Amino acid sequence: MADWSAQQYLKFEDQRSRPARDLAAQVPLAAPRRVFDLGCGPGNSTEILRARWPDAALTGVDSSPDMLAKARARLPGVDFLQADLATWTPPRDADLFYSNATFQWVPDHLAVFERLIDALPPGGVLAVQMPDNGAEPSHALLRDLAGAAPWRDTLASAAVLRDDLPPVSVYYDRLRPRCRGFDIWHTLYEHPIDGAAGIVEWFKGSRLRPYLDALKERGDDFLAAYQARLATAYPRQYDGKCLLRFPRLFLVAVK
Amino acid sequence: MADWSAQQYLKFEDQRSRPARDLAAQVPLAAPRRVFDLGCGPGNSTEILRARWPDAALTGVDSSPDMLAKARARLPGVDFLQADLATWTPPRDADLFYSNATFQWVPDHLAVFERLIDALPPGGVLAVQMPDNGAEPSHALLRDLAGAAPWRDTLASAAVLRDDLPPVSVYYDRLRPRCRGFDIWHTLYEHPIDGAAGIVEWFKGSRLRPYLDALKERGDDFLAAYQARLATAYPRQYDGKCLLRFPRLFLVAVK
Repeated sequence: MADWSAQQYLKFEDQRSRPARDLAAQVPLAAPRRVFDLGCGPGNSTEILRARWPDAALTGVDSSPDMLAKARARLPGVDFLQADLATWTPPRDADLFYSNATFQWVPDHLAVFERLIDALPPGGVLAVQMPDNGAEPSHALLRDLAGAAPWRDTLASAAVLRDDLPPVSVYYDRLRPRCRGFDIWHTLYEHPIDGAAGIVEWFKGSRLRPYLDALKERGDDFLAAYQARLATAYPRQYDGKCLLRFPRLFLVAVK
Repeated sequence: MADWSAQQYLKFEDQRSRPARDLAAQVPLAAPRRVFDLGCGPGNSTEILRARWPDAALTGVDSSPDMLAKARARLPGVDFLQADLATWTPPRDADLFYSNATFQWVPDHLAVFERLIDALPPGGVLAVQMPDNGAEPSHALLRDLAGAAPWRDTLASAAVLRDDLPPVSVYYDRLRPRCRGFDIWHTLYEHPIDGAAGIVEWFKGSRLRPYLDALKERGDDFLAAYQARLATAYPRQYDGKCLLRFPRLFLVAVK
């Protein structure tokens, strides 16, 4: 995948940062010594961790040089590290592996979660949030469009780039045996968005990236077709806004 | 409805209190002066409000003398008031109306929410959480069972006692125009429960009350039939637990 657009992603920072705060709020650690923010992006989640645990040694990890540059500029006192989480060897001295909206992109992330838990000391925590909107109209319409002419040939690989998340029962059976405590839940946020164009804008910085990278100069035509379909699926509220329902999966594992 | 069983309800207090904490965590008030806990039950939510805002004048409101007796014994420094929320006249000097797992029982609660918001000063907050599990297997099976012989005649009224909640879009259109800020979301908790018998036990203190009150001495037979249906709908995990998915609707309105 091409490098992430930090600027596009930050446009929706206020609404996007609530899941990061909600995840941090459920971590049952008063004073962790060493904390890793896995997939730190431009540093908005890292900043939340910094505020919650100001005395912890904090390291942000991301695969994108663009995101890491933004994060370093924003948080000069924090360590940042470029790495691919699919193959990264976790350190043995972390008290908390925290990851907000990243592991949905990592193939077989359940195996990575097992490695992360195995690297934790007793009482250490793995805390993860991932979008889980594969069944929402926004994503069903995107798959339908990408699977039809004239986009199908170009988008065959992008369309399967990210699979749906497994059900909660699978995370429970794979991870629970490694943990003293395990909590898993979904939150379905409802974002008031300025119409279908606003929904397109929202996903431009995330789910649409692989599609646009594959389509290159045909991207605008694709977005126009997508926006037209969204407009029928997301009716306007009294104030002209659309409510974009956005389900996210959370898990907090205490070793 | 007969008086609530405070003892049955408190059996599951730890898991039940997380939604109350999650709701309190989203209230954007640093130091409210006067706080009402509407439907305070045995005082577990009231205790959370007491810890969050120790300097606020705090009043718990409930319709059940049994619940209020438990709450008074637990929190001697808090005011408690017996009232029916459907007809209660809200005071004009509250900064926060907080309500955890109560308004699903109040007919036309949207009209009550409008009255509560109207009674708030600018900047005041209405924060509400309600179970929204009408579409879950636990509740679909219960409706099916109650609608079939031999229970149908006795349970016709109990089965409709509580309707499903309206969709999010309805709350938004009715309440958003009265507010400066409005946030609405669902959280779907996953409670590990000891099999179908544990699920029956969980709902005995809440959703099953009107059924059991109507059935009287036939209640045990009804529960046995319900438990048998639950066992097929909720498979066991590797450790023998069932995951009871429990969706709850949250809204936070800032006037």
